[in-house]
Amino acid sequence: QTDSDRLWASLMEMAKLGATPKGGVNRQALTDLERQGRDLFIQWCRAEGCTIRIDNIGNIFARREGSDPGAKTVMAGSHLDTQPTGGKYDGCFGVMSGLEVIRTLNQHNITTRSPIEVVAWTNEEGCRFPPCMMGSGVFSGELAFDAMMARTDADGVTVSDALDAIHYRGSDEVSPDEIKAYFEPHIEQGPILEDTDTTIGVVIGGLGQKWFDLTLTGLEAHAGPTPMNLRRDAMMGAAEVTQALNRIAHEHQPHGRGTVGCMTLHPGSRNVIPGQVKMTLDMRHWEPEALITMAQAVASAVEEICQRHGLEYELTPTADFAPEHFDQACVNSVRQAAEKLQLSHMDIISGAGHDAMFIGRVAPAAMIFIPCKDGISHNEIESATPEHVHAGCNVLLHAMLEAAEV
Amino acid sequence: QTDSDRLWASLMEMAKLGATPKGGVNRQALTDLERQGRDLFIQWCRAEGCTIRIDNIGNIFARREGSDPGAKTVMAGSHLDTQPTGGKYDGCFGVMSGLEVIRTLNQHNITTRSPIEVVAWTNEEGCRFPPCMMGSGVFSGELAFDAMMARTDADGVTVSDALDAIHYRGSDEVSPDEIKAYFEPHIEQGPILEDTDTTIGVVIGGLGQKWFDLTLTGLEAHAGPTPMNLRRDAMMGAAEVTQALNRIAHEHQPHGRGTVGCMTLHPGSRNVIPGQVKMTLDMRHWEPEALITMAQAVASAVEEICQRHGLEYELTPTADFAPEHFDQACVNSVRQAAEKLQLSHMDIISGAGHDAMFIGRVAPAAMIFIPCKDGISHNEIESATPEHVHAGCNVLLHAMLEAAEV
Ligand SMILES: NC(=O)NCCC(=O)O
Ligand SMILES: NC(=O)NCCC(=O)O
Repeated sequence: QTDSDRLWASLMEMAKLGATPKGGVNRQALTDLERQGRDLFIQWCRAEGCTIRIDNIGNIFARREGSDPGAKTVMAGSHLDTQPTGGKYDGCFGVMSGLEVIRTLNQHNITTRSPIEVVAWTNEEGCRFPPCMMGSGVFSGELAFDAMMARTDADGVTVSDALDAIHYRGSDEVSPDEIKAYFEPHIEQGPILEDTDTTIGVVIGGLGQKWFDLTLTGLEAHAGPTPMNLRRDAMMGAAEVTQALNRIAHEHQPHGRGTVGCMTLHPGSRNVIPGQVKMTLDMRHWEPEALITMAQAVASAVEEICQRHGLEYELTPTADFAPEHFDQACVNSVRQAAEKLQLSHMDIISGAGHDAMFIGRVAPAAMIFIPCKDGISHNEIESATPEHVHAGCNVLLHAMLEAAEV
Repeated sequence: QTDSDRLWASLMEMAKLGATPKGGVNRQALTDLERQGRDLFIQWCRAEGCTIRIDNIGNIFARREGSDPGAKTVMAGSHLDTQPTGGKYDGCFGVMSGLEVIRTLNQHNITTRSPIEVVAWTNEEGCRFPPCMMGSGVFSGELAFDAMMARTDADGVTVSDALDAIHYRGSDEVSPDEIKAYFEPHIEQGPILEDTDTTIGVVIGGLGQKWFDLTLTGLEAHAGPTPMNLRRDAMMGAAEVTQALNRIAHEHQPHGRGTVGCMTLHPGSRNVIPGQVKMTLDMRHWEPEALITMAQAVASAVEEICQRHGLEYELTPTADFAPEHFDQACVNSVRQAAEKLQLSHMDIISGAGHDAMFIGRVAPAAMIFIPCKDGISHNEIESATPEHVHAGCNVLLHAMLEAAEV
């Protein structure tokens, strides 16, 4: 059993860095506050006797050696960066749980055959520097290092400059081939565990994602003198596309998701018919074919809607991730750990993208979900109970011990 | 006949003040640029021997005396302020036409029984200081002087301070009772005259308007892990309200109008279900009962849509103007002038609000529309032909002469 109080204390200590008045955390990737979080994490790991490696994109690996010098490593982790209106648990729970596993092993003098390693991936959130899951993406070879280094934030600062500014551009070469198993504990960020009163989500994989930018162009005109039948109202197109995306997601249940999260009207004046609307489309599904069918159905709907309203459009893909099925053995380790600990559990599919999904493409991986209050995350009111945090960390401990062999 | 070249030259001279690279004009109310426009207008009027009066909200009245000291005044005018992305004609065409009438009378030594007066109303656009038609609203007693003086722009500057800064807070008391007839030439700002190849719109009145702010509140949640059936997606509500408003406007043809011009999604992140949407509703109609029916139908639709999507809402009226029917005699003067000049003409209802609508509530008034290219206004590409400008001004001359008695 891990030490519930010690884990909670570390989580709360880390949450002070970037603490917001509303009880959340604003510790965005590669800022000086996140540097402080990294320093604190490394300090804690060094105190446990870990050796630290930092790779070229700033991912931090803290290693507790095993007894077999030839054995691959059993890794746990997540990320220390947050959304601007982030909470205390998204990301940090996974990293602190990994650290707590090492502290528990040290406390009880347990030797494992495989090394145990905790990782904090760089820039999982992607809110300052898109895209998200940048560190694990570069590590796994899914995202190109040079392209990522050139990405800029809203002030034009590059990832490269930001890494140098906080002195976290490392030179250690860490390879996915070193990994025997990777486990990522995370809050669910959805309502299912809470709704079903379940403590542990055994994550069997993650939804595939297709993201698009859509620009609809009609004709800007005065809301008063322009008769309804002479309009080319881009907002009418945007409203119908929103409904079409929603309807298509509903037609692909239980796994389909469709969301319009951003919409900007031009010129955005209350008595001017919008001549242009820019919007985003986010669609997800568990089955690759269904995701493709959804995207095709949305594209046809856009075409038909625009023809009917006399609009031009541009539909540009901005992200495309295939569904990820986690490693059977890793998933079984998580399920068995929950059973051994007599925790209520259920198989669950992650609706959100996580570092584990990139790692899962190059090494055996799985995730452990715990409930979060009202399913809310990316929000300062994000919340999780000490009991659930403790339970998730215990599942991690047992899953890692099985993989690392005592 | 007025002097086409002289009128055009004055319009183009005025358009230099605030000229934008794209050929438009940015001369917002009570800025120093608009002060320059006012100064130039007054200088031109003084050169024609006019006396100038300025009232407490900065409306400028330039008067050419008539032969009968007891006669009421025949007035023409519009406004000199523009939208930030405004054109050369919206407003300025009316003021310059009034001035051209005076120049023509002077040139031909014509004496009228009634005085002829040209007015430039303060802040018709309302884009810097809402609401629109502020000067004519205060003049006609429809808008409260004190409340208007306290209105602020985006930088917190009050109308009162802005008036003082450009030295246009006057002390002349000008009363609507002085007005025998008020004529306002204006570009149509819509496509009807152009579509029907008509030179003169004989404006019989203006649509009533009801404006609302609508806030829809659901629950902000992650776009991936939140199943479709557990969402309270404010954007779904916004899309349906947009369609309902449009459908209701279509059900009230030929005069109904319904427009969503602004929409803001919170938090506005591509992978977050919008927890809140703020939007504006603009509805218009010619018949008072129909306008009320439209507003009621929209309110019921909002109620039903919000219930179905689990949303809360706040629907707040922000403007409410009854339809305005212009004075029969003034309208006839305009129609007869067009006929006498053998100009193609049609009766038309203004879809947009104008100073003439406030004046029409307290004095006999009418408007003269000319076509504008593609019906576009509030846009730097706003355009009108010298022929149409000239025709509109000639109609004004003849309508004013009939009212003022030669
Ligand atoms: N975990 C998480 O919030 N990932 C962000 C990417 C996504 O939208 O799934
Ligand atoms: N003429 C004009 O653009 N008025 C603005 C108010 C309206 O939307 O009708």
